[in-house]
Amino acid sequence: MDATDRIEICLRDIIEGHDLQACPPRLKQAVVSAVFPGGARIRPRICLAVAEACAEERSEAADLAAASIELLHCGSLVHDDLPCFDDSPLRRGRASVHQAFGERLAVLAGDALIVLAFQALMRSAATAPGRLPDLIRIISRSVGMHQGIIAGQAWECEQTVDRVNYQQLKTGSLFAAATAAGAAIAGADTQAWWALGERIGSAYQVVDDILDVAGKTEAIGKPIGQDEARGHPSAVKDLGLQGARQHFQELMSGITDAIPPCPGRDHLRDRILEESNQLLPRAMAEHAA
Amino acid sequence: MDATDRIEICLRDIIEGHDLQACPPRLKQAVVSAVFPGGARIRPRICLAVAEACAEERSEAADLAAASIELLHCGSLVHDDLPCFDDSPLRRGRASVHQAFGERLAVLAGDALIVLAFQALMRSAATAPGRLPDLIRIISRSVGMHQGIIAGQAWECEQTVDRVNYQQLKTGSLFAAATAAGAAIAGADTQAWWALGERIGSAYQVVDDILDVAGKTEAIGKPIGQDEARGHPSAVKDLGLQGARQHFQELMSGITDAIPPCPGRDHLRDRILEESNQLLPRAMAEHAA
Repeated sequence: MDATDRIEICLRDIIEGHDLQACPPRLKQAVVSAVFPGGARIRPRICLAVAEACAEERSEAADLAAASIELLHCGSLVHDDLPCFDDSPLRRGRASVHQAFGERLAVLAGDALIVLAFQALMRSAATAPGRLPDLIRIISRSVGMHQGIIAGQAWECEQTVDRVNYQQLKTGSLFAAATAAGAAIAGADTQAWWALGERIGSAYQVVDDILDVAGKTEAIGKPIGQDEARGHPSAVKDLGLQGARQHFQELMSGITDAIPPCPGRDHLRDRILEESNQLLPRAMAEHAA
Repeated sequence: MDATDRIEICLRDIIEGHDLQACPPRLKQAVVSAVFPGGARIRPRICLAVAEACAEERSEAADLAAASIELLHCGSLVHDDLPCFDDSPLRRGRASVHQAFGERLAVLAGDALIVLAFQALMRSAATAPGRLPDLIRIISRSVGMHQGIIAGQAWECEQTVDRVNYQQLKTGSLFAAATAAGAAIAGADTQAWWALGERIGSAYQVVDDILDVAGKTEAIGKPIGQDEARGHPSAVKDLGLQGARQHFQELMSGITDAIPPCPGRDHLRDRILEESNQLLPRAMAEHAA
């Protein structure tokens, strides 16, 4: 089974849980709509690719860690889209959760996704019990109030914001969790893998900033021009469109050296570069050139 | 050190974390304001009392589990108070988090408290590694979308609601987590302890329903008459004030039998009855009589 299928099946299994009857029906619909159909699932795919490169064979634990990261990503999008934040009516080309189900169920769906993520990690202990504390440490850090997504989002509520730190927290941290968790499942040292993920996340964020200025709503599935409208920090604002594109190329060119030694290093490098080539769609690259 | 001091110190320690500088200052203030000064801390005190009754000696792990439950309780209050739910300006006699810090930081503070709770549990693995999966299972169930607080809150968004189920989820589940986690830390079987917590939670909820009708804002620290105004299920609405009071007495009278066998059973019984006597303040009992 390929990585994409493994991730979809695992996500579905976690949400259905063991006690489906018990879940209030509209909450369940809201949670399902936040997760399916998904975007590129880039974070869980990176997590699985790293676990495989580190020769991890407990695929169930890896699937659960990868899915846990995707659930946290989906939950953060639901809360980011709320009227008090981005007030976004669209996500992935469809109505955002609060648009479709109302604000109350959007708050609850986001909360539920955080809890589901930790329930998924707990289940990974069935096949990899010794890895559980490390997985929780890595993944909770990547979303938490000190060094994670929540911290990143909260910097939007401060008077002054450092763009690099803001983007590292809001985007880099969950990519870092993806690489570090993949390594942790395999029992590898996680520090260097965390740094790799941060670099991939930075590249991804620069692309997001470029698309916000030069993309098309129908291509990216959400309104464009929002960073400017909301006063969010942006690499394009700081560096210009051409400068942001150059910064992306620099980040990508350092990625090969940033991959820690592991049995499947060459194959992993090829996969990451392949992903990255899809990050900035051809049309976009032409526009920015 | 008594239980109250242990809980306050542990909560403070978890929130301060190891990297205080990194947390956006207003988010940190919002989280602190959601947790301190606290209410009765009844859930963590029950958790510690059960752990002690089960002869658990790893007090650090018990403190962390107890604090984790309190953080989840505080987080749920922050989100419950949001404008889209109860729109409550007051909590514990002071401005609610969204009132003091705005809606965005209230959403984020609630999210942060969920993550902090799991970070606290992760730290308990340092002294009780084998208990971690069980603790996460119990505590995540008690807040989750299938059988926990989030499910309870989501029933408010459905057309029809069963009061007993709604209150069991919204209040009973976290009390059940408190008793079951206390037992789990000690390695005891948790099922019977879960049922005890549900019973204590039901009693607590009946008191809350009574106070909402017959309490005073200054005594309970939040506006009264809200269940009626918001159409929330309420034992008083179903049973009348006198009937609700009688139901409370019935629930309490069965509690002694519901305590599972354990080394400190008699002492635990006395403590639970003592707590319960404080639940329905004397003034309230006189009013309802």
